[in-house]
Amino acid sequence: MKNVREKRPLVHHITNYVTVNDCANVTICAGGSPVMSDEAEDIVDITKIASAVVLNMGTLNKRTVDSIILSGKIANENGIPVVFDPVGAGASAYRNLVADRVLTEVKVDVIKGNAGEIGVLSGVGGEVRGVDSVSSNNEKEATEALARKYGCVVAMTGETDYVSDGNRTITLRNGHMMMECVSGTGCMASSVVGCYVGANGVSVDSVAAAISAFSIAGELAVPASKGPGTFKMSLLDSLFNLTAEQFDSMRKAE
Amino acid sequence: MKNVREKRPLVHHITNYVTVNDCANVTICAGGSPVMSDEAEDIVDITKIASAVVLNMGTLNKRTVDSIILSGKIANENGIPVVFDPVGAGASAYRNLVADRVLTEVKVDVIKGNAGEIGVLSGVGGEVRGVDSVSSNNEKEATEALARKYGCVVAMTGETDYVSDGNRTITLRNGHMMMECVSGTGCMASSVVGCYVGANGVSVDSVAAAISAFSIAGELAVPASKGPGTFKMSLLDSLFNLTAEQFDSMRKAE
Amino acid sequence: MKNVREKRPLVHHITNYVTVNDCANVTICAGGSPVMSDEAEDIVDITKIASAVVLNMGTLNKRTVDSIILSGKIANENGIPVVFDPVGAGASAYRNLVADRVLTEVKVDVIKGNAGEIGVLSGVGGEVRGVDSVSSNNEKEATEALARKYGCVVAMTGETDYVSDGNRTITLRNGHMMMECVSGTGCMASSVVGCYVGANGVSVDSVAAAISAFSIAGELAVPASKGPGTFKMSLLDSLFNLTAEQFDSMRKAE
Repeated sequence: MKNVREKRPLVHHITNYVTVNDCANVTICAGGSPVMSDEAEDIVDITKIASAVVLNMGTLNKRTVDSIILSGKIANENGIPVVFDPVGAGASAYRNLVADRVLTEVKVDVIKGNAGEIGVLSGVGGEVRGVDSVSSNNEKEATEALARKYGCVVAMTGETDYVSDGNRTITLRNGHMMMECVSGTGCMASSVVGCYVGANGVSVDSVAAAISAFSIAGELAVPASKGPGTFKMSLLDSLFNLTAEQFDSMRKAE
Repeated sequence: MKNVREKRPLVHHITNYVTVNDCANVTICAGGSPVMSDEAEDIVDITKIASAVVLNMGTLNKRTVDSIILSGKIANENGIPVVFDPVGAGASAYRNLVADRVLTEVKVDVIKGNAGEIGVLSGVGGEVRGVDSVSSNNEKEATEALARKYGCVVAMTGETDYVSDGNRTITLRNGHMMMECVSGTGCMASSVVGCYVGANGVSVDSVAAAISAFSIAGELAVPASKGPGTFKMSLLDSLFNLTAEQFDSMRKAE
Repeated sequence: MKNVREKRPLVHHITNYVTVNDCANVTICAGGSPVMSDEAEDIVDITKIASAVVLNMGTLNKRTVDSIILSGKIANENGIPVVFDPVGAGASAYRNLVADRVLTEVKVDVIKGNAGEIGVLSGVGGEVRGVDSVSSNNEKEATEALARKYGCVVAMTGETDYVSDGNRTITLRNGHMMMECVSGTGCMASSVVGCYVGANGVSVDSVAAAISAFSIAGELAVPASKGPGTFKMSLLDSLFNLTAEQFDSMRKAE
């Protein structure tokens, strides 16, 4: 967390137009600097100067899918960590196709998804309705299977979060159910992961630290909020103001 | 309202990029589950699993107009209610053309607009400046005329709201002028209508209930807010926390 | 400020999808009426009825760049003020190319940027990282040089703001560092400038008044906020509630 704030990693996003503003603001509150661009000609330069790239397929179209692949490849060539958020994988044949294309053509360093998405991609089984996860047969197993499948770190977020590289798995138990009542908390978590791997490199520990920081901020936001509207604002405030002491004392990780 | 929260209808949106985040969050706060997608290949699957489709032409382009038509047709084939928000109809020749195309090629179940838009589309007369309504000659008459013209339910929102199927018209008098000071309250109202017709079917009553719930939430948000910024957050909070008792005791419907 | 609220200028935006909602809401809070549209066929009519046009290249693509040029040309033909926000100029070759194309093909009336962007465009020197300014050699000199280069008013915003037409320069010292912690405050400032030049015409004074109003609102928002999330909401509230007395007593302009 200290590293993120000191290094202020530039996190390039190709993301959906629904939650993009929240992704930009959460990046700042986590200690990073956000940039969003999805035009092929622009991406080459922007990706190269980034500390991490976050690719999110929440509202994809043919032009931006090509941009996602291009940005991922440039990041790979330049040793820049790639975080992939397969929003809605399992909800449509097209999303499955795009997720598969990204995971085949790009070396993804971190996959961050909900139980349904990770379940579908891992082959363990899961169900997605729209962009929400409905179920997954075995959350921990699916996380580990997907990590082994692509040789990357996988973070599955939900009531309990799992972060695994296939060998080692950290179980996280922070967060609050109000986070499910705000559109975009999943996307925001991916942006925070982008900040942490941009500053600290890719590892189970750096991804788990990012998820913990965001979830703890969610817990801290509850007393200051009266519903999903004020909660989202308080969540940004809490992440911005999060101290190392709060992080250490509140963290529930095994 | 109870039905919406129990059934948690999936509401598919093809909407503008200005207020799309508010539409997603208001859908959750009303009790639904939002999904946004505008790529032709993705829409087929996503539309089919939706409980309702909301088509909003706030920031249209040729690609998304085709997607709007496609999603509307798939919804028609599958008996899924279609809500159309003709944002800015009357403000440009292109918007008039698109509105006409949607209403000709898709069987729209609900049209939700402001006085200017409904006035223009009904032929009764109205004026739109940008995306704001300037005037309408006769609000109730325009609402009823448009409902008869397309055989659908029409909701005209403003200081007084009218909801009509051409035979029966409900007049609603809830809401607060602060709602005019927030961009996207019109779009958000359409999302709430999507939730209600998705859970309860299309009728004057279900559309009017949606408009009332949103307007009452607006009234409840005023004491907790100091201007348009905090008002929007409180509006989401109030809708999320709205009780059947508040709805029944505060509702002004004739 | 009084003029803006009385005339309620319609401000047309072609802007990025990251901060577009904030631009819409800040336009309302400043006293204007926002409209966003980027489809060529729609733009002709929408631009003609606008009081000012704000062109922002935050998330450009080929289609919207053509729309930016088209809207700018129509504004020029109709004597409508054009405000240009060259977001990220200096961060990529493509952005430099687009900024150059806009400034060559459109007669821009106001350029609003951060120190890095203005430094790059003026030729005085500046550095941009993503969309953030890193440095500029000489902020006041760069502002004046750019104003002379294109015969327009230039506003450079930062800890100290400079507004110049090349002959006369106003130095502004309002604002709060929390404004740097919210994505989109730069874009929002451009929207407020759009409102002021739309109502009062283009001059160093009207642009400086817009920047001051926005910065003073930022100062007023601090006590009501606990971090970047609640600050943004309070900033909108404060701008909406800003009085002439607050403006006059708090303004720091030389």
